[in-house]
Amino acid sequence: MVMLNLQMATPSRWFLQVDENLNEILIDHAHCEKKAAGVAMNLLFAYVDSTKISRAMAEIVNEELEHFQMVLDLLDHRGIQFRKLSPSHYGPRLHKLIRKNEPERAVDRLLVAGLIEARSCERFSLLRDYVKDEELQRFYGGLFESEARHHATYVRLACDLATESTVHERLHWLALQEAEIISEGDELPRMHS
Amino acid sequence: MVMLNLQMATPSRWFLQVDENLNEILIDHAHCEKKAAGVAMNLLFAYVDSTKISRAMAEIVNEELEHFQMVLDLLDHRGIQFRKLSPSHYGPRLHKLIRKNEPERAVDRLLVAGLIEARSCERFSLLRDYVKDEELQRFYGGLFESEARHHATYVRLACDLATESTVHERLHWLALQEAEIISEGDELPRMHS
Repeated sequence: MVMLNLQMATPSRWFLQVDENLNEILIDHAHCEKKAAGVAMNLLFAYVDSTKISRAMAEIVNEELEHFQMVLDLLDHRGIQFRKLSPSHYGPRLHKLIRKNEPERAVDRLLVAGLIEARSCERFSLLRDYVKDEELQRFYGGLFESEARHHATYVRLACDLATESTVHERLHWLALQEAEIISEGDELPRMHS
Repeated sequence: MVMLNLQMATPSRWFLQVDENLNEILIDHAHCEKKAAGVAMNLLFAYVDSTKISRAMAEIVNEELEHFQMVLDLLDHRGIQFRKLSPSHYGPRLHKLIRKNEPERAVDRLLVAGLIEARSCERFSLLRDYVKDEELQRFYGGLFESEARHHATYVRLACDLATESTVHERLHWLALQEAEIISEGDELPRMHS
């Protein structure tokens, strides 16, 4: 099972939401790719003094927007109308955990982004094995690897800003909070509910 | 001469700034590519209901970030340290012209973005012919075409939101304001000073 520093596997309850709302989860998926690109773009703007962060973020923005377009294609192809959706509480709750002062703020922003990538990666892997539809199996299977890579990039960049042990301690703590949010779930059927 | 709806050619005064501050203008250029990507990303977020806008913006974000990385490479290669810079007044002054209510707001945001692309395109073309350095000639020559294409994309997207004559009237008016800002110039040596 893909865990990538996550402290809890997705509870089986989520698959009930998938069974009943797969189209809505696909629409939310497009929003998630867009938001992942937005997060990387914000980090690029915030830490543009670090060309290492800038370059890594530019790559991630490009890949997430490519995925965004892949999900739009999939929606088109399935006749599903893309539309705005209320987001799940997952992202905002995680962002509240980010410390206010630098350089801790940068470490937390990178690690929170990394945890979201890890959870997406786990969910894509679960969906690939769970859904019956072969097109969707290929789709989720294809996205999986880059999310794992993004997770590793975010953690590696955080390690430039603090000692490795500090980063891993913080990552562990954030992952425990993430697990708590996931265990509570969300009434809205979403990629991260 | 490249004009692309611009109402005034760059005044010769600008070349004095180029002569004396080429390195600073190169650093500002990296920031401009980043900001162009940011503007397209903001439009993607604001008008995500329109998959036509979303897809076009995703393409533009990717291209601008590719250019951003090209400028970073050029800076590295020349031993110029990338750093934060106070921006020119050009962008903020143009953004103030954007109307507040939709759908006029969307039209203006697209047209202002399109005018900035047009001015960048004109400046790249001027720099290509002006600079003595062959690496820079190739560099500016290579960026030129995509900025012209982005200009056309922005104007075309605006034409989906209002009649073509309304859009062109507004574009003409905005271009007159842009010409005014350019004719006033900026004390800071910048890509759009």
